[in-house]
Amino acid sequence: MPGHNMRAEIIAVGSELLTPDHCDTNSLLITERLNQAGFAVHLKSVVGDRSDDIAALVRAALRRSDFVVICGGLGPTEDDLTRRAVAGALGRQLSVNAPLLEQLRVLFARRGYPMRPINERQAEVIEGAEVLENAVGTAPGLWLQEGGVQIVLLPGPPRELSPMMENHVLPRALKLGAGRHLVKQSFRVLGMTESEVDSRIAPIYTQYPQVDTTILASRGYIGIRLHQWAGAWEQTGAIEDLACRIERALGSAIFTRTDDSLEEVVGRLLRQSGRTLAVAESCTAGMIGCAITRIPGSSDYFLGGILCYSDDIKERLCGVPGNLLCKHGAVSAEVAEALAEGVRLATGSSTGLSVTGIAGPGGGSPEKPVGLVYVGLADGSRVVNRRRVLPGDRALIRERASYAALAFLYQHIIAARNAGQP
Amino acid sequence: MPGHNMRAEIIAVGSELLTPDHCDTNSLLITERLNQAGFAVHLKSVVGDRSDDIAALVRAALRRSDFVVICGGLGPTEDDLTRRAVAGALGRQLSVNAPLLEQLRVLFARRGYPMRPINERQAEVIEGAEVLENAVGTAPGLWLQEGGVQIVLLPGPPRELSPMMENHVLPRALKLGAGRHLVKQSFRVLGMTESEVDSRIAPIYTQYPQVDTTILASRGYIGIRLHQWAGAWEQTGAIEDLACRIERALGSAIFTRTDDSLEEVVGRLLRQSGRTLAVAESCTAGMIGCAITRIPGSSDYFLGGILCYSDDIKERLCGVPGNLLCKHGAVSAEVAEALAEGVRLATGSSTGLSVTGIAGPGGGSPEKPVGLVYVGLADGSRVVNRRRVLPGDRALIRERASYAALAFLYQHIIAARNAGQP
Repeated sequence: MPGHNMRAEIIAVGSELLTPDHCDTNSLLITERLNQAGFAVHLKSVVGDRSDDIAALVRAALRRSDFVVICGGLGPTEDDLTRRAVAGALGRQLSVNAPLLEQLRVLFARRGYPMRPINERQAEVIEGAEVLENAVGTAPGLWLQEGGVQIVLLPGPPRELSPMMENHVLPRALKLGAGRHLVKQSFRVLGMTESEVDSRIAPIYTQYPQVDTTILASRGYIGIRLHQWAGAWEQTGAIEDLACRIERALGSAIFTRTDDSLEEVVGRLLRQSGRTLAVAESCTAGMIGCAITRIPGSSDYFLGGILCYSDDIKERLCGVPGNLLCKHGAVSAEVAEALAEGVRLATGSSTGLSVTGIAGPGGGSPEKPVGLVYVGLADGSRVVNRRRVLPGDRALIRERASYAALAFLYQHIIAARNAGQP
Repeated sequence: MPGHNMRAEIIAVGSELLTPDHCDTNSLLITERLNQAGFAVHLKSVVGDRSDDIAALVRAALRRSDFVVICGGLGPTEDDLTRRAVAGALGRQLSVNAPLLEQLRVLFARRGYPMRPINERQAEVIEGAEVLENAVGTAPGLWLQEGGVQIVLLPGPPRELSPMMENHVLPRALKLGAGRHLVKQSFRVLGMTESEVDSRIAPIYTQYPQVDTTILASRGYIGIRLHQWAGAWEQTGAIEDLACRIERALGSAIFTRTDDSLEEVVGRLLRQSGRTLAVAESCTAGMIGCAITRIPGSSDYFLGGILCYSDDIKERLCGVPGNLLCKHGAVSAEVAEALAEGVRLATGSSTGLSVTGIAGPGGGSPEKPVGLVYVGLADGSRVVNRRRVLPGDRALIRERASYAALAFLYQHIIAARNAGQP
């Protein structure tokens, strides 16, 4: 069907997904793979562990969708009803598959668990179904066709479902998707507001109506997403053209074209430039250190730092002069700079990065409101700072302050590189 | 209907909720309120901004549910189709409500925004509907009845939806729920595995079949949840009895009965005991400091600390003797203790807490595998440590190491208190 996407729907089975505590997140991963294969998801449902409800949904899905993915409820317990309910909805037999039963016996023996009669239910296969191997768990998947509709049953645990989507469902779905697929490109931008980004690139992207362009403010950066559905025989040059023109318009404000996190990009820049980093964190109290060290191998450039939550530690460990704290207060440009230089000297790193601010809810004043944050940076030749007044509650202000510090460091290294320094 | 829960369903409208990037989370909050009012959610759906799809779902919902909450798609743009689609599904008129239009005009004027013709659509009301005030945004909610089924339309933004559920939907739903409601009690337990908890309390909870008891391993603790559906005229003594007996069986292994976080509980204990805390974090690199300072007012007991990611910082700032690092390695009981005592002395705090470990993916060896973590604690009179081998990937190991450190501190303070020390 050129020019038209096949309609997919996702059914998540599990009573725990109908409580206030649990969300269905499997469908995000399933959607990503289905989109890759040219299927658009038009409906998602969550249903409890009840045969009648599952069967009713499956019957409805057959009338409105080309592709139905059902996940969860393939375990061995009384609560796991998906196989039986789907068989019932299709009017097909459910019977134990001998080779599968044997595989399960081998698997249990290898793991040293006793196989109980109840586990034999996982060897039950719906008449006419193809078995999809589960390399991680004991519940195999099933693939069925009914009146031109594809139906896939997958286990609920994400670590089992994810490789099965990738290895079994995606390759088969790609063949069915008539060659249509979603072409994507994304950018993340620092140092501009959403509307600044929009006013710069709207004159460009409006020339490409065949590409769906979205600008979205995220915490710490602005994301730009380009989407284009295309058949195998269609030109996808439009999205590449558009991406190239956006890159030229925004330059180094774009910190990644591959959805890398800011800490990943900054880490790469530190490594390339042979710098080492230490942090002095007051209001963020570890959030920046924690983010930087998410990246494996960050010990190559990150030395550590000081959590200078109290003024005494600012003085004692970061060497901020007591009179500076008295005169300007802990949340000031002067103290931010002193902290950055202080932690650089205390740790022997080439770069020191600091944050001091008022995260709230208390502690604000008319001159220094909640959300006021100073970021400091010392690189051995100079010490600089940046002032921000960040919106949000305590958690958001701290998160934004961390991003503001990493952004400041990113821009500093890029500017040095552009100026021909390391 | 005594002994029977009324069936509710939730429909979330929005094409962005059908992408790989966005999950419906409004339904969690809606479910919580509906449960409070005696409605069990039996189905949730997510549908795109398409009139036909929305209308089809609404018609199906009328056949299977007593209560239908539809959220999203009440905005002013072309994409916002919920009002129109629901009116169509019910065969009712949609017309501009004069008082509501006037309210909108006032609201726009007060905010200083121009009111465009498109905004007038938000004053459209479905025939027979009651208008639910939106105190935060411009899209009012609507409440309808059709053949004994209650239908509620709410705006999608959580900050608008949340107070409307609380102030408008919950009070009305409570009246309809025939007095049935969900009684809950939860506990969080430290220092035991899921199966240890189960073997201790199974002999108790199996005596209360009317209460639904769930034990769930969470990151850093084991959660126990008790649920009981009850009518106004029914005894809920069972859940109270059971809760009381579980408390006696588990004692101080329970760190909260009110879903407080571990950092909140530890903070309260530090404050009560007049202690101050500093941390020395190696593999967690700020995660513990960040968690403790999530709590407003934590500066009363948290001084700060040292991110001793490199060995040089362990020596230089935490005073760990170089020969200790050489002899035992950075990940050792000896270094964990030296870090805890070192950070205590360097910061002048009464308690020092440290973590050193191998978060992976690299750096492991047969003697010291990835996941090996030592936690150290110094309180001025003694220095102790605890060894753990934590499962999971880098992110999980770091998170679990942070919880292990906070758990160690919690247990230390509780033990001191039980021994009659401050």
